[in-house]
Amino acid sequence: MPQIDVCLSPELLHLYQLENTIVVVNDILRATSCMVTALSHGVASIVPIRELDDCLKMREKGYLIAAERDGKMVEGFDLGNSPFSYMEQAVRGKKIALTTTNGTQAIKLSEKADEILVGAFLNKQSIIDYLKTTQKDVLVVCSGWKGKVNLEDTLFAGAVVEGLSDTFEMSNDSALISKVLYRDSKPKMLETVLQCSHVQRLKRLGIEKDIEFCLTENLYNVLPKMQGEELVNIL
Amino acid sequence: MPQIDVCLSPELLHLYQLENTIVVVNDILRATSCMVTALSHGVASIVPIRELDDCLKMREKGYLIAAERDGKMVEGFDLGNSPFSYMEQAVRGKKIALTTTNGTQAIKLSEKADEILVGAFLNKQSIIDYLKTTQKDVLVVCSGWKGKVNLEDTLFAGAVVEGLSDTFEMSNDSALISKVLYRDSKPKMLETVLQCSHVQRLKRLGIEKDIEFCLTENLYNVLPKMQGEELVNIL
Repeated sequence: MPQIDVCLSPELLHLYQLENTIVVVNDILRATSCMVTALSHGVASIVPIRELDDCLKMREKGYLIAAERDGKMVEGFDLGNSPFSYMEQAVRGKKIALTTTNGTQAIKLSEKADEILVGAFLNKQSIIDYLKTTQKDVLVVCSGWKGKVNLEDTLFAGAVVEGLSDTFEMSNDSALISKVLYRDSKPKMLETVLQCSHVQRLKRLGIEKDIEFCLTENLYNVLPKMQGEELVNIL
Repeated sequence: MPQIDVCLSPELLHLYQLENTIVVVNDILRATSCMVTALSHGVASIVPIRELDDCLKMREKGYLIAAERDGKMVEGFDLGNSPFSYMEQAVRGKKIALTTTNGTQAIKLSEKADEILVGAFLNKQSIIDYLKTTQKDVLVVCSGWKGKVNLEDTLFAGAVVEGLSDTFEMSNDSALISKVLYRDSKPKMLETVLQCSHVQRLKRLGIEKDIEFCLTENLYNVLPKMQGEELVNIL
């Protein structure tokens, strides 16, 4: 039986074996929710980038450039980190270069994995269905908040573990913890997430609408996968 | 209101401020459960030590020496990591030097804290009562398993968070996650813990009796606190 494991923070990633493993990176509020939304709305590809300066330079190469730091859009960029801005006609067919506080960093740190997928509640079932067909070991990597564990990413990890529980074996306690948390919180997900510290920060930025949207399950049938430096929809 | 936070692994400890904070270190299976048991049975003091060699040298200084690695007692030492061995007449009044895979490491890493307490389910209420009287910020440090997050330490953290929830404010999601997990698992703690990966390892070592004992709440009224290099009962 293939194994399913969860890495609760990028700071713990060095403890996990990435070789021969499919990594599913998630940053529910809001980087990977944006990526999933963008690819569902006809964005051609997304290049995740660690540093603001490197992202800025991508404009010359014809990319739309997107940047978020501390929950806010960075001045001088075309796009921020709200999923709604990735539904606009203006992004259709475009290539986007994106840097965020946590999510893009987690993707870059996962480079040794066999495959890197990007997941969110929005495309949860597409991710689960694909993982079931591959039967390879899976590691869900939570982006967290500046290294600390956060609630919404752990909940998503738990949702994936639950979805795979018939055909995968949990290899560590983080998977079990995430699954218990998800099962407990599922009937009151928005209420639970509204208590959490990252959300308190985001609420001060006036983006409750984004939060509710990012917790919607299975809105999009899309499977974002890293191919070289680019994230593309392989469905 | 003072704050309560949880560090789910020693690998994340550098992200937390320890100054002006009371740290509660726990390693439920079994280091801190042993320490609490020992101090409840008249052991004079315990010196946590990181390296096996340094621990071995303490014999010359009149200490009983105790060592565990990978769940097993290390050859050539007087004691291992089973709480029952710390109830014996032979340990009464003695000073013990102890090194373990995870728990003693977490104590040493917490040295910058204002106060370091050692907690386990066995003395849960004594810890909570003391923290309520101090009204200082608290960080529960889970020892985990070789850097990874584990279930039983997270459950204990959740038990402390729940015990303080009327008078302390949760400062991060790890506290919330732990609390939800504890509340969910409380009616079936042994059953939940028996699923977890560390316990699967320990079961192979034939110590189910230890596991059940270590999950017993409030058996001892004891408050182990680091004073210099020594852990002593301050009640």
